[in-house]
Amino acid sequence: MTANRFWRLEAHPHGNDFSAAFALKNETIPSIEDGEVLIKVDYLSMDAGTRMWITPRTDGYQPPLPLQSKMVGLCLGRITLSRAEGFAPGDFVRCFGQWADYAVVTPATSGLTKLDEDIADLREHFGTLGMNAWTAYAGLVDVAKIQPGETVLVSAAAGATGSLACQIARNLGCRVIGIAGGPEKCRYLVEELGCDRAIDYKADDVEAELAKIEGGINAYFDNVGGPILDAVLPNMAHYGRIAICGLVATYDQEGPSIGPARFDQILMRRLTITGFFIPDFLDRCTSYLPKLRQWMEEGKLVVRFDETKGLEHTLDAYARMLSGRNIGKVIVDIR
Amino acid sequence: MTANRFWRLEAHPHGNDFSAAFALKNETIPSIEDGEVLIKVDYLSMDAGTRMWITPRTDGYQPPLPLQSKMVGLCLGRITLSRAEGFAPGDFVRCFGQWADYAVVTPATSGLTKLDEDIADLREHFGTLGMNAWTAYAGLVDVAKIQPGETVLVSAAAGATGSLACQIARNLGCRVIGIAGGPEKCRYLVEELGCDRAIDYKADDVEAELAKIEGGINAYFDNVGGPILDAVLPNMAHYGRIAICGLVATYDQEGPSIGPARFDQILMRRLTITGFFIPDFLDRCTSYLPKLRQWMEEGKLVVRFDETKGLEHTLDAYARMLSGRNIGKVIVDIR
Repeated sequence: MTANRFWRLEAHPHGNDFSAAFALKNETIPSIEDGEVLIKVDYLSMDAGTRMWITPRTDGYQPPLPLQSKMVGLCLGRITLSRAEGFAPGDFVRCFGQWADYAVVTPATSGLTKLDEDIADLREHFGTLGMNAWTAYAGLVDVAKIQPGETVLVSAAAGATGSLACQIARNLGCRVIGIAGGPEKCRYLVEELGCDRAIDYKADDVEAELAKIEGGINAYFDNVGGPILDAVLPNMAHYGRIAICGLVATYDQEGPSIGPARFDQILMRRLTITGFFIPDFLDRCTSYLPKLRQWMEEGKLVVRFDETKGLEHTLDAYARMLSGRNIGKVIVDIR
Repeated sequence: MTANRFWRLEAHPHGNDFSAAFALKNETIPSIEDGEVLIKVDYLSMDAGTRMWITPRTDGYQPPLPLQSKMVGLCLGRITLSRAEGFAPGDFVRCFGQWADYAVVTPATSGLTKLDEDIADLREHFGTLGMNAWTAYAGLVDVAKIQPGETVLVSAAAGATGSLACQIARNLGCRVIGIAGGPEKCRYLVEELGCDRAIDYKADDVEAELAKIEGGINAYFDNVGGPILDAVLPNMAHYGRIAICGLVATYDQEGPSIGPARFDQILMRRLTITGFFIPDFLDRCTSYLPKLRQWMEEGKLVVRFDETKGLEHTLDAYARMLSGRNIGKVIVDIR
């Protein structure tokens, strides 16, 4: 292949229909400048957080991606050309690159990292050893400060980050309750991830189910915000901690989100709510890797991959992830 | 005086009109049981937090006070009878007692504390050495973790807790901005409390004023919640901390509060919001006293008292405090 296909942001999307928002374009393989590397991309990671930077909102956690830009996202691949110190052709790497056959990145601004190839499935660098796993670990341990014996609640629990958060909390000795939509996901939470209980937000009265939790919820790992957070707040234990990992419920709103109606419970129950954004802590995250790898090798941390083949089908994978039709980690194999 | 006058909760109040909610009653001076003390009350403290326990809400930070109970509040006074170990007639004490000439309390459940009488003004035990000061100190130092050089914002800044928070933040080397209602309070903040700036929420466009703060707000000591919190959230610095001390804006609402419309900023700006309730930490608070006392003696921590004379005028003082017509600490002298 001598050409490079890439997805270009054409317009700000509405909801989860991306057909008008992106166009698949062709160009010759890009040349690189001093300080850059060229990567032949093998896999793309579909991440809900990217939904924020394709809105025009200037108050998000990243500045908006300008229209007509190549779409930015996490990639796994192999360096083919390097003009950056410390990186050489042949290195297998992960970085924030582009949705493209070939990505051009600068190490400092892309989180470019050389990866261990001595594992059974290289995709695990998007799985148990990847950013979703760091997010789950950091959110539970550093932000929500979970302790053995506590009750931990996880929303979007069958998603990539949620499914890892359930298992990590379980591995750390917590009682884990997962919230997901539909019986298949709920079965997955209990039978495969070892959750003590699953709540089906599409079928159950979430607030009523949460009210049955004896002793209340000590820690809530929240991926969604919105009505589920409202149901959780009055059912937190005193001094409970909420780690806000994502507010998926609000990303495709045109305006800002509406805050939780039960915000007063922060005071009444003496809660701590913290928003965190894992790309801020990429350097710290490497310290989580030995533990995550040990759990992976012991079979205690497992990621189910929801894989789409072909760069040309990326938008299907992206929409599936954002509308919650996936179980586990959504990736695109573009080899 | 051989009789005891006391305020009884007759009905749940609406707004800040307490005339139908309380009745001043008479009884003979109560006798005490084993484990109790009788206190001749000198001063009552008017505290916004008490507004919560005279609602029927069961989701507040304290269970509701049953109707027909004597009203509970912080008292300063002298023990006249004791059947509790460690307390003797003549001891000058502070506790959660009753709005009454004589209070009957159990040490363990009332926070009963013997006080130092070797200070110029005993009222300082409701002032620079009292619970408002501990609240301000704990909220700034333990909860919001302020650091020298940071920008600290305080709402209800001319109130008892707020005025102490402004001075403590200033004493700890922060740049301090106070929000209060009206030019007299704003002048007080800048000229007497040493705030770097005051914002008059009745006259200024609060959000526009906050947007001018270079570098954003590192820590917000919030006494009010409501629309001011909405104006603050998008103007917080990244990794900012918000200590929720009170949600006065919502206490007299019939239903629960509506959450901040800009809740999404918790994630976007990686904020931490913590609700805290100082009576939970009474044991820890004594460790703040030496520092507070030193500042008091150096003239660096000053409380202005808004004093009403006569138990029979308590409701006027209470309504004045809750409607923000006071500057400083509202107390009732019932000697």
